[in-house]
Amino acid sequence: MNVWTQPILEISLKNILSNFRKMQKIAKGAEVAAVVKDDAYGLGAAEVAPYLHQKGGCRTFFVAHAAEGAALAPLMPEAEIFVLQGVGADSLPWFKEYPTLIPVINSPQMWSFWQKSGLKKHKAALQVETGLNRLGFRLNEVVALSAKERESFCLLMSHLACADEKGHFLNTQQLENFLALKKQYFPKTKTSLSASDGAFLGGDFLQNLIRPGAALYGINPAPYQKNQMKNVLCLKAPLLQVADLKKGEYVGYGATYQAPKNGRLGIVSIGYGDGLPRALSNKGKVFFLKNGKPRVAPIIGRVCMDNIMVDLSAFKDIEVGETAYLIADFYPLDDMALAADTIAYELVSRLGKNRRFNRKYIR
Amino acid sequence: MNVWTQPILEISLKNILSNFRKMQKIAKGAEVAAVVKDDAYGLGAAEVAPYLHQKGGCRTFFVAHAAEGAALAPLMPEAEIFVLQGVGADSLPWFKEYPTLIPVINSPQMWSFWQKSGLKKHKAALQVETGLNRLGFRLNEVVALSAKERESFCLLMSHLACADEKGHFLNTQQLENFLALKKQYFPKTKTSLSASDGAFLGGDFLQNLIRPGAALYGINPAPYQKNQMKNVLCLKAPLLQVADLKKGEYVGYGATYQAPKNGRLGIVSIGYGDGLPRALSNKGKVFFLKNGKPRVAPIIGRVCMDNIMVDLSAFKDIEVGETAYLIADFYPLDDMALAADTIAYELVSRLGKNRRFNRKYIR
Repeated sequence: MNVWTQPILEISLKNILSNFRKMQKIAKGAEVAAVVKDDAYGLGAAEVAPYLHQKGGCRTFFVAHAAEGAALAPLMPEAEIFVLQGVGADSLPWFKEYPTLIPVINSPQMWSFWQKSGLKKHKAALQVETGLNRLGFRLNEVVALSAKERESFCLLMSHLACADEKGHFLNTQQLENFLALKKQYFPKTKTSLSASDGAFLGGDFLQNLIRPGAALYGINPAPYQKNQMKNVLCLKAPLLQVADLKKGEYVGYGATYQAPKNGRLGIVSIGYGDGLPRALSNKGKVFFLKNGKPRVAPIIGRVCMDNIMVDLSAFKDIEVGETAYLIADFYPLDDMALAADTIAYELVSRLGKNRRFNRKYIR
Repeated sequence: MNVWTQPILEISLKNILSNFRKMQKIAKGAEVAAVVKDDAYGLGAAEVAPYLHQKGGCRTFFVAHAAEGAALAPLMPEAEIFVLQGVGADSLPWFKEYPTLIPVINSPQMWSFWQKSGLKKHKAALQVETGLNRLGFRLNEVVALSAKERESFCLLMSHLACADEKGHFLNTQQLENFLALKKQYFPKTKTSLSASDGAFLGGDFLQNLIRPGAALYGINPAPYQKNQMKNVLCLKAPLLQVADLKKGEYVGYGATYQAPKNGRLGIVSIGYGDGLPRALSNKGKVFFLKNGKPRVAPIIGRVCMDNIMVDLSAFKDIEVGETAYLIADFYPLDDMALAADTIAYELVSRLGKNRRFNRKYIR
């Protein structure tokens, strides 16, 4: 009998690299950058980025905040690291310290701040708004830039709102807006329009550079078809206890589950404190392997901070110390996200931030 | 015009201490331990625990995992740190290294493992199951222990399922089960039954030691009455951009929001990558202060990984660089949790894990 207590998160750098190479095929000659913002969607930018840099030859990275970029710059001195949230008084020191950090300028106020910053030889990128209604220069703001200002940007970029829905009218509309802006105001500037999902739309959506994040981490970037990316995660936790459950007994906080008949209860050492969504209360499931085949045990009662309870009534042979699988090749991130009524992007960025996992990288 | 990019989380250690002292009044003479598991619900156990140890005289702490305890033990050599998930082969080394870590024994298998571990002089606590149907010895397992084994535990504990609902029948039932077990099998053992919410039930629920976590962090431990705890968090983020929004335009991923009339849009630099629940899409809100008075701006469109969009149509004077408040005394954790369809426990443990915040502790 094996008694153990700590959940384990296995992250396959190998499969992240394989997904990066897959995106290079999808890119049909466009450059492929790696989006490693939010600590590589929680999976550890300090592990993921240098691995893609070294093994995949990736030379362009995107982070959200300058502080994230500053942690990576010394690890990859040749790489360019774009900072999507741009620059402000609180983040300027990072750009001064690391010349390979490139702010994405999102507003005229930010542009004005950057111009006064004294970093005149430092590269900057420009974000333009084409229909997402998020960060970026609006048309009138682009028009207000001088030709010299416009030519100073090393990259013109925008971001799509509905790229995961093939055929959505906004995709065409945003592409048209982007191409018109480029033609009239930035004819010679390097361009980037698409993240993972946009890249799968192909053609003009590819531009000079694509910026996959989700696809690298195994999330289906084209949900209208079978996932072409490899799963990169395995999340498992110990079965800490097994007990009889009598008909009529309640399970968990708020007594939200009542046993319909005599059965068998398992307590697994993982909870929302580890990033498992509490929305999986009475809805999620875990798996126990038998001869390599997964057997499902539903989560019963509410997800606690450190534990979940599962129904083992169907399996008399499952014992304390066995491994409960929560995410695996046979039940990837997207499946758990669906059950938790969210998207895999949110789920992985949340799970990955848990510092209590015994974390293992597969190279 | 102030341009800045990084969200800020302020954590008031002062108010956590004040909440600890409040719990000492509620405890009516019972000892008050501090639950600092899950990195003090995300707020930084390495900050919170030593502060309560030094300023509050707290000498007993609870963590979930041994590794969490091992990080705290050297900071507070005189404190006892109980480990709720207990001990297993993966966590035994921590107990060997730190004699002040005390495993909570949750199952006969764990007890057997611990007895074979060679740490014979090391203290251990016993968890008994009284109605939550989570971790702990069941009655037949308690009966199977010898008198000598039972007397060896330094603390007998259990955990309530519905303590936040005053008058719930399970509270009485669990208390009766606990008192019966104590009387028959552990007459001389120190006892603990209640966390924050149980402590507010008073009387026999207090036993020798209460274990508040949530209450320390400002969560209402007695939701049937006005919150008696002080808010400990202030979460704020920069307004990164302001733009016109035209009638009929869409906002955000999936185009889930369409402007009903011409208006004004704000983009705030915080998202689910920072731990803000995506469930707040088209539902949450932020606040901008005017003469110290909060003015509400609703979140429109989906919460993104690094940004949210808010409706500024009602406020022509709000400009780039202003501070958007997401959690504050006037809108505490419990309020945001309600809007996000979850509990403040999950929300804070998630927000707190974000490493991108500019994090400030108020002493």
